[in-house]
Amino acid sequence: MNQIKSQTLKGFRDFLPKEMAVRNYVKNTLTEVFENFGFLPLETPALEYTSILKGKYSNETDDKLGYFFKDNGDREIGLRYDLTVPTAKVLAIYSNQLQLPFRRYQIQPVWRAENTQKGRYREFIQCDVDIFGTDSPIADAEIISLIYTGIQKLNLKNAVIKINSRAVLFDILTKSGVEKDQNSILQSLDKIDKIGQDGVKTELISKGLSDAQINNLFKEIKTSQPDANLQKVLDLLSSFNIPKDAYIFDPTLVRGGDYYTGTIFEVNVDGANGSIGGGGRYDKLIATLGGPQISAIGFSFGFERIVDVIQELNLLPENNQSNIKVLVANFGPETEKNILNLVSQLRDKNISSILYPDFDKIGKQIKYALDLGIKYLAIIGTDELKNNKITVKNLVTTEQKLVSFDELINML
Amino acid sequence: MNQIKSQTLKGFRDFLPKEMAVRNYVKNTLTEVFENFGFLPLETPALEYTSILKGKYSNETDDKLGYFFKDNGDREIGLRYDLTVPTAKVLAIYSNQLQLPFRRYQIQPVWRAENTQKGRYREFIQCDVDIFGTDSPIADAEIISLIYTGIQKLNLKNAVIKINSRAVLFDILTKSGVEKDQNSILQSLDKIDKIGQDGVKTELISKGLSDAQINNLFKEIKTSQPDANLQKVLDLLSSFNIPKDAYIFDPTLVRGGDYYTGTIFEVNVDGANGSIGGGGRYDKLIATLGGPQISAIGFSFGFERIVDVIQELNLLPENNQSNIKVLVANFGPETEKNILNLVSQLRDKNISSILYPDFDKIGKQIKYALDLGIKYLAIIGTDELKNNKITVKNLVTTEQKLVSFDELINML
Repeated sequence: MNQIKSQTLKGFRDFLPKEMAVRNYVKNTLTEVFENFGFLPLETPALEYTSILKGKYSNETDDKLGYFFKDNGDREIGLRYDLTVPTAKVLAIYSNQLQLPFRRYQIQPVWRAENTQKGRYREFIQCDVDIFGTDSPIADAEIISLIYTGIQKLNLKNAVIKINSRAVLFDILTKSGVEKDQNSILQSLDKIDKIGQDGVKTELISKGLSDAQINNLFKEIKTSQPDANLQKVLDLLSSFNIPKDAYIFDPTLVRGGDYYTGTIFEVNVDGANGSIGGGGRYDKLIATLGGPQISAIGFSFGFERIVDVIQELNLLPENNQSNIKVLVANFGPETEKNILNLVSQLRDKNISSILYPDFDKIGKQIKYALDLGIKYLAIIGTDELKNNKITVKNLVTTEQKLVSFDELINML
Repeated sequence: MNQIKSQTLKGFRDFLPKEMAVRNYVKNTLTEVFENFGFLPLETPALEYTSILKGKYSNETDDKLGYFFKDNGDREIGLRYDLTVPTAKVLAIYSNQLQLPFRRYQIQPVWRAENTQKGRYREFIQCDVDIFGTDSPIADAEIISLIYTGIQKLNLKNAVIKINSRAVLFDILTKSGVEKDQNSILQSLDKIDKIGQDGVKTELISKGLSDAQINNLFKEIKTSQPDANLQKVLDLLSSFNIPKDAYIFDPTLVRGGDYYTGTIFEVNVDGANGSIGGGGRYDKLIATLGGPQISAIGFSFGFERIVDVIQELNLLPENNQSNIKVLVANFGPETEKNILNLVSQLRDKNISSILYPDFDKIGKQIKYALDLGIKYLAIIGTDELKNNKITVKNLVTTEQKLVSFDELINML
């Protein structure tokens, strides 16, 4: 066997237990919210026929961003780069098995051969939740309620859900005499946070708009009001018990995707560079992607960004930091059966515990516990054995006590 | 955009919510057991340098089984085909961050371009749990305790953990005068369930063994006894409170892998075609795979086989079958705010519920609930509104009652 240098691909990451603790916390918290809201899990393969994946959004996506290759059977295949295209495929294939409205969540990695930079990876988790098959504004309001609940459960600070409507934006463009390439114009407007108002102006001029048109557009957008449909969505939010300060109608919110048709939203929180998620109504996309003619509304939580925020602001709850509560120390053959029995009984009581498998110096065993973030050391030496007791040491306070098994359980 | 036929690759699967319910149940149950036993989560990338993946086990694995290709940067890369090779990489790269013994579990998909057949897929979940960095027989016994607990929690029937030792087998071979190619001889012996004793004999003759040698080998193996180390492992099992009928010493157990060095085990249960998992001690493999010189013992739960058994024998607990408890019916605009409020309050009480977003015929709404396996329908019509009550209908018994919100919560 060849000895080679061990190396992980650029843009890819190994997640050691400490990082996994944060990732699992975010994943499990959001999954609980999704299931509480009656969304059902869906998973699709990592690999699909290239014909399923290509030509869906733009050619740029296809060639620069994709991992495409031929398999051993000479099939053209590729790794999924999002979860919407595979879901459109699922809606096409299994339409007779899926009840509409179909409420699904999907949390899986996707792969993009993009240039890497801070916070941008070639393998990352997407976390999508969508309702397919209803036009009802109740669905729009419900997604906003779900976003609000997700933010609360994750304890993210100063979150604001910005809400607008693509329909309102299209209407403003039309009224301002901009009838062609409306999506392209909106893409420029969406860049205002990145390139500023002047940058946007320059782009719009290059797209053929006049100075007067542009100034009028900015004015119209800033002072626009929700249309009837968006007003209905906003009115429903109070029935979902969402506090007024959790969201705002933001007429300048545009969103990048060309596929949005109605309500759009985006979430900002403290500690995040950019939004931690976005979404909206996209009633025509599924058909364009090869699925059925079906209305759709949903939200994508920016999983990796949320993980970063939780890490940077230390928002991981203490009891998620190490799931191992107790290390049972090993003092050699004489008490071996007793420590096995103790760890076994602790596990029976649902207390995550391990025993140190070797008869090493106690200092080494304590260091091991501390390195793993384990709070309690349980000791059965010959004295404890005689009295049928356990010495338990709190490794944080260094306090120690002689207790019975039942007392130990009550302490933990 | 091109309209193409929606199709999933052969050997790959889309998992709709009903299938996901079983998969999540198995995954969550095993994860709970792993964490209870103090194992920590690890995840590694889907893609690795080809040099990390190739030449690890045999050339057959490399060329027939792998998904290997070049990325846009002309790097030779491939999809992982197991979780042991990436873990060896992790142990090599992060040795200064990992405390030994390192107890990790890893549950991720792997990809193999194998011929497909019933129960064999090109994308499937592997579910590995291992302890790295200790020779202690306590670790061997602990893994067996974990297997036993996993089986119990999954409620698998008539499970037997078969236990043997590669060291015992090597010893028998040496004593029988078979000193060369011992691994190859063991591979033939491992096939006895597939090709029968005669088939094994034919293979062994082709490998240069004499008739007398072979007969002697069969006899020696059948009557062999645990060596001191295995006896120690077996003795420790009772301290882990594993009942005697949960495991047997099976001197004929061989296991396929060339890398096993000591204790080996395998689990059989009712309803499974073959074992639902196997493992053992492999003290030299990690170094061979490019990792450090480190002892290792672990077990791999056959995730896909377990899912099949749960499905075929209907072992999925009822409360895992649909996580949605209540459908709140929609009777139009008049009670719209009330049903939004109700569904919101139910969710606050951690009762997974949905509302029907459109004002459809009640029959259609009930059919939707039944199709999704939802047990309760909650109705707020004008009468209920007047009395501040809710009609709740059990869709299984068709019984219905007028109740207050608090009464409803108590019923669910």
